[in-house]
Amino acid sequence: MRIGLVGGTGKEGRGLATRWTPAGHEVVIGSRDPAKGDNHAAARCDVVVLCVPYAAHAATLRELAGELAGKIVVDLVVPLVPPAITVVTLPEGGAAALEAQRLVPDARVVATLHHVSSVHLSEAGRALHGDVLVCTDDAQARDVVLGLVGDLGMRGLDAGPLANAVALEAMTAVLLYMNKKYRRQGLGLAIAGLDG
Amino acid sequence: MRIGLVGGTGKEGRGLATRWTPAGHEVVIGSRDPAKGDNHAAARCDVVVLCVPYAAHAATLRELAGELAGKIVVDLVVPLVPPAITVVTLPEGGAAALEAQRLVPDARVVATLHHVSSVHLSEAGRALHGDVLVCTDDAQARDVVLGLVGDLGMRGLDAGPLANAVALEAMTAVLLYMNKKYRRQGLGLAIAGLDG
Repeated sequence: MRIGLVGGTGKEGRGLATRWTPAGHEVVIGSRDPAKGDNHAAARCDVVVLCVPYAAHAATLRELAGELAGKIVVDLVVPLVPPAITVVTLPEGGAAALEAQRLVPDARVVATLHHVSSVHLSEAGRALHGDVLVCTDDAQARDVVLGLVGDLGMRGLDAGPLANAVALEAMTAVLLYMNKKYRRQGLGLAIAGLDG
Repeated sequence: MRIGLVGGTGKEGRGLATRWTPAGHEVVIGSRDPAKGDNHAAARCDVVVLCVPYAAHAATLRELAGELAGKIVVDLVVPLVPPAITVVTLPEGGAAALEAQRLVPDARVVATLHHVSSVHLSEAGRALHGDVLVCTDDAQARDVVLGLVGDLGMRGLDAGPLANAVALEAMTAVLLYMNKKYRRQGLGLAIAGLDG
């Protein structure tokens, strides 16, 4: 599958590329800086992953709206602006992913991958902990993305409609708080009681 | 410790009493129906746990405001109204626990226990899965409640300020969705990466 990473020159994008490329996917790095990547990568891809900082989220969606229409758009952006990253802040409408859907109504927005450490992803071969919750209103897009999560070496789980992205995004602030509090790096979320 | 359960005649209250009583606590069941319990139990307790349905949350807080002032108030209420319990809905201000703090400014509100199955609690001796995340702005109240979570037989974790209750409450809808989707009962949340 051809996967475009918009904002893919950051840590998160590099981490995803580290895992998806050996799994047989073609990863295209997009960047708003033409020196760093192709800012029209989206048009040539089956799936587009938004890995921009929240401060650039709305502008990126507006800029790429034409190319994203009809595409599966994986939104892992969390509505946090440094330094206040350990306290939940809700954007208007409750979730960045819902903003994305509003800005590009024809996109097939899937909210997921908020809780996966870019550092852990980048260490090829490292076992990744936690489950990956997937929220979307598009059943076909969900199946595609659950497959891509499996290709990262993780268990993807259906976490309901896109409205539930509020929970995933908000939990990111909690995990960042707990990283600091418990002196860990890359704490994740797991669903208890699914096995057995 | 003397623990008052407001709305404690429901499943959640019975489950908590099943665990806390043998751990040495005195559990007082409060109810708005005098035939079922003491609706002024709060005044005589060290810690008060709100286990009312969300539809009764604000009214209960207003009614008991005088008794709750200065107390540790454990709020496990989630802002969901049946039948729409598998999709996140945000109350004004983002969280029921923040509403509680606003309605009783002198209460020491602690948001926790949203993800613990009342059925599992009620089965004395059953091992409980998942972690219990605790959000509050009161450090001393946090320590007391982390102790009470331990007395239930679970691991309590500091999940940050009361503002982070948004994440805990919203995740409840996700877990209820997943119970249905994956045909489980009482799925919980665990933090991955804390051990080792």
